[in-house]
Amino acid sequence: MKLTKFFAAAAIIGSTWHAASAQEMRASDAPRIAPISWWVGMNNPNVQLMVFHPDLNGRTPKIDYKGVELLKVNRVDSPNYLFLDIKIDPSAKAGDVKITFSAKGKKDLVMPYTLAARDAKQKKAQGVTNEDFIYLIMPDRFSNGDPNNDVIKNARETAMNRDSMYYRHGGDIQGVINKLDYLKDMGVTAVWLNPVLTNDMEKASYHGYAATEFYQVDPRLGTNELYRKLADELHKRDMKLIQDLVHNHVGSEHWTVKSQPTKDWLNHWDEYTNTTYKDQVLFDPYASQSDKLKMTDGWFVPSMPDLNQRTEFMQNYITQSHIWWIEYAGVDGFRLDTYAYNDADYMAKWAQDITAEYPSMTYFGETWVHGIANQAAFTEGKTINQPFDTHLQAVTDFQTYHAINKTFNEPFGWTAGVNSLYSVLANDFVYKDPTRNVVFLDNHDVSRFLSVVDEDIDKYKSGLTWLLTTRGIPQLYYGAEIAMKNFADPDGKVREDFPGGWEGDKQDKFVADGRNDVENDVFDLVKNLAVYRRENAVLQTGKMMQFVPEDGVYVYFRYNDEKTVMIVMNTNESEKSIKTNRFAERIQKYTKGWNIVSEDEMDITNEITIAGHSAVALELK
Amino acid sequence: MKLTKFFAAAAIIGSTWHAASAQEMRASDAPRIAPISWWVGMNNPNVQLMVFHPDLNGRTPKIDYKGVELLKVNRVDSPNYLFLDIKIDPSAKAGDVKITFSAKGKKDLVMPYTLAARDAKQKKAQGVTNEDFIYLIMPDRFSNGDPNNDVIKNARETAMNRDSMYYRHGGDIQGVINKLDYLKDMGVTAVWLNPVLTNDMEKASYHGYAATEFYQVDPRLGTNELYRKLADELHKRDMKLIQDLVHNHVGSEHWTVKSQPTKDWLNHWDEYTNTTYKDQVLFDPYASQSDKLKMTDGWFVPSMPDLNQRTEFMQNYITQSHIWWIEYAGVDGFRLDTYAYNDADYMAKWAQDITAEYPSMTYFGETWVHGIANQAAFTEGKTINQPFDTHLQAVTDFQTYHAINKTFNEPFGWTAGVNSLYSVLANDFVYKDPTRNVVFLDNHDVSRFLSVVDEDIDKYKSGLTWLLTTRGIPQLYYGAEIAMKNFADPDGKVREDFPGGWEGDKQDKFVADGRNDVENDVFDLVKNLAVYRRENAVLQTGKMMQFVPEDGVYVYFRYNDEKTVMIVMNTNESEKSIKTNRFAERIQKYTKGWNIVSEDEMDITNEITIAGHSAVALELK
Repeated sequence: MKLTKFFAAAAIIGSTWHAASAQEMRASDAPRIAPISWWVGMNNPNVQLMVFHPDLNGRTPKIDYKGVELLKVNRVDSPNYLFLDIKIDPSAKAGDVKITFSAKGKKDLVMPYTLAARDAKQKKAQGVTNEDFIYLIMPDRFSNGDPNNDVIKNARETAMNRDSMYYRHGGDIQGVINKLDYLKDMGVTAVWLNPVLTNDMEKASYHGYAATEFYQVDPRLGTNELYRKLADELHKRDMKLIQDLVHNHVGSEHWTVKSQPTKDWLNHWDEYTNTTYKDQVLFDPYASQSDKLKMTDGWFVPSMPDLNQRTEFMQNYITQSHIWWIEYAGVDGFRLDTYAYNDADYMAKWAQDITAEYPSMTYFGETWVHGIANQAAFTEGKTINQPFDTHLQAVTDFQTYHAINKTFNEPFGWTAGVNSLYSVLANDFVYKDPTRNVVFLDNHDVSRFLSVVDEDIDKYKSGLTWLLTTRGIPQLYYGAEIAMKNFADPDGKVREDFPGGWEGDKQDKFVADGRNDVENDVFDLVKNLAVYRRENAVLQTGKMMQFVPEDGVYVYFRYNDEKTVMIVMNTNESEKSIKTNRFAERIQKYTKGWNIVSEDEMDITNEITIAGHSAVALELK
Repeated sequence: MKLTKFFAAAAIIGSTWHAASAQEMRASDAPRIAPISWWVGMNNPNVQLMVFHPDLNGRTPKIDYKGVELLKVNRVDSPNYLFLDIKIDPSAKAGDVKITFSAKGKKDLVMPYTLAARDAKQKKAQGVTNEDFIYLIMPDRFSNGDPNNDVIKNARETAMNRDSMYYRHGGDIQGVINKLDYLKDMGVTAVWLNPVLTNDMEKASYHGYAATEFYQVDPRLGTNELYRKLADELHKRDMKLIQDLVHNHVGSEHWTVKSQPTKDWLNHWDEYTNTTYKDQVLFDPYASQSDKLKMTDGWFVPSMPDLNQRTEFMQNYITQSHIWWIEYAGVDGFRLDTYAYNDADYMAKWAQDITAEYPSMTYFGETWVHGIANQAAFTEGKTINQPFDTHLQAVTDFQTYHAINKTFNEPFGWTAGVNSLYSVLANDFVYKDPTRNVVFLDNHDVSRFLSVVDEDIDKYKSGLTWLLTTRGIPQLYYGAEIAMKNFADPDGKVREDFPGGWEGDKQDKFVADGRNDVENDVFDLVKNLAVYRRENAVLQTGKMMQFVPEDGVYVYFRYNDEKTVMIVMNTNESEKSIKTNRFAERIQKYTKGWNIVSEDEMDITNEITIAGHSAVALELK
């Protein structure tokens, strides 16, 4: 679909309900149709258009376009909205549909609507699997590829200040595109950006989780076209794009909040009510209705109104926007923000609607919870006796995250230290497919792992070695490869700029010369493991076998018919030697271990000696 | 069945393979048949007799008794054993079956076998449910009702020494019988004794977990007849008997260990191998075979040989003994020791065999593990995606146990303190039926709860209030009601004598006059709650509703159509007032709360004030 054509069509009524041009914010009261365009030949021929115009009151819509049928006109509380149920026959031709809104005694209002042809050559919805290695980027803080979009004049927040963690810093999508070769070289196969939709908020708009538009990339990050270009550039490199979705809430300046279609558009409370953040109530057989309501309908923060996902209008509004981004930009996977706070029935329906349209599409939910059962309860297949099937394929694996923290910060004990990590993974039977879960050491919300391990580089490298060799889809947070640190107190501290991402930066840590020895050491470890992982199925889809940790040493294997990789993690301060005969089941006739990172080879026939606080990944020979 | 008749029959060959007479240990090499008797009219007409006699070699057995068919003779590695598959027709008459063992040139060997009629009037296998309140007794340490059996001359251990925690103290079944009125008065409805089978071990034989006989009550505790009398006396009082079973291992002096029927009778290792105690390997999808084998086939301790439960001979030997005790003595429920260490397939079969014979029988397994998934994995129904159905109805609930410990020993936090307890219960959806689980504050293996809460009587009483009002089957450890204390370091310290259980004891804490004020305070709390619980279904089968703890205060309800009980637990040091409108869903139109323990009534229309470190159970009025 060419948006230029669409923009031309929009000129019919001289309005801007469509996606605004690059570097332009749209007024909340500008006329709009959502989705802003659609396609002929979708699996689901139906789409619901949410039409907003200040002069809709009393008007009746009409569509005269071959193959496009107006099934139903839904009038709602606000006279400025109409919800039009449309059916698009596969035989319809792409083109500009005129929707005419008539009322007695008034001049017809005509709103154009673009029906595009699907691009069969475009890669999209490929799905992100355990063959991938995800790199998470906060786009405002990674690289500034286009200084011209740093400040947008008609935005609510116009300041840019790299010295403040709460202001925009100017990083953008072009900056990400500029660094794709860097990421590819490091072994990354998928890029997850924090949300890129317009966040036209007065304060702290940089993080992206307070959308004010569903169909526009924030002009300070780029344009819709540039976002699609990012996907194209990724796909050219055999890499994938993950979009970060927020179903639960929007920014308080979201245009549908300023002018609400229905009285029940938001979850309203007599007085402001925050969510309790207590996931337990969702599955607790003993939970009270009031606690459940507070959890799901309480607001995440005062500046982010909570969407009422129980109405079909809202459901369609959200779900269609996600389908639109897949089809328009070529998104390959979704990350679902604040998953637990959504309406569970809607989310299950959402998941089914997405995979009905794109069977290979994948999505993983953020489930920042404590406990195996708490986390697994959100995953698909009713595997742990949940009252319903969530249809959620995977989660951000906070249980291994909690455990890897304990691994390096607790003395080894019956349930402590690396036994915690071992035990969490031993519980994997509770999932339909644990290998879809996304494992991580840190992200934009939590302390950087280097600080968590008290800046101990050996522990840090052990953690990275685990990340890239355990089951699941590893996710690295930008800057982890150059040993960026800080505690998330407040969270802005873990969202610092990547040195070298801005013209004039004193240091450029995207290149080896700009990194110091320690940073290069960490970078090389990540790169060697990630590239090996990308080139060897054994670390992607290989089976796992883990042994009961003994004396603070944890040994596990990844193996397939071709290769076996043995990982030995010593969580003790002192060097340890372990007898290898205990692992005969996997070592079999191998006699040597080739260190994937150092490329050294060691004899493994009797024992392996491993330094304190270290981990080695050995391909067995 | 009258055993006297059976003993007379045994005189035929002047042998003692039957249960030895009272106060008599049997030599390991004495001839035996197991089961020592059986019944006509069991649901399963088949039984496998394990016959042991030093002169069986080369002999062929014959049975000439109407309705009794010898289906198959199984010869095994040892010539001194025969396993006879018998079928007993329902039409067979009770009586003494002669089994003749013949061999050419040898005089016939005749072993008598009693077939008894089932006693339809005897209560048995009633099942222990959440209507019950269990009292756990270590019989050697509770009350000495018969000083004549304190020392048995031909036993391996003959010393009795109340000053040593490792020696016998002389408590016995008669002592328990003597105190049944005490227990009944306190509201107890079921008594669980640590194992009462003969433990003819050289050292520390008092605890009962190292059986050397499967068909004989340890003479130092009493006789088989007395054990049956205990069941009768309990049943007369509408109380129930729980037998403690050890499937996994026996004492090293067990007669089948001294003379093993088959080469694979025990789990043998080239060199002594202890179990790892690591339950994780049993369900870990990544576990190694070697770790699994060590867990299940490794020995619990060197003095307790691990039984190989994979053979049908062993399975029958164990299972039939349990059926025998139900049918003979009238046992109502089983507690299954060291459940996780058994062969899982056998245990699932065992459970099905037991309930096939006694549909109302109940059993709960000891699962001393850490984690909801780890514990739930052992329970029936494949509810959390286990690879097979364990058919285990319930467990000793170590997860609430860990949590109630944290409740009073951790400051309130997001996952800490009483939030831990709340969260564990919120995870109850993982069980087929969580109300079958046995909840407890302590038992014979762990520190007494009073010591765990640093002897803080307020915290202690809060714990007891929780125990008797939460979901599940509450279990009290003997002496908890009189505030006995001590850490389980070593475990003998929590197995002290109940003061007043021995003639001549300076104090008698079975009576109010013998208890000090604090002890009476605790006793009265237990009694008031337990008696209320026994008389009010609301605390037995009533539904539960719990609210998210706020500010260290945890509120939950038990309710049914008739009554509502509100429990408020303040885990803070200081007094707290809570607004009651938050609980409107359950408080409804009630305006008063009647304190079940103090019998005071308070107004609950606006708020409830509750002292620091306390819990109140209020019947709403």
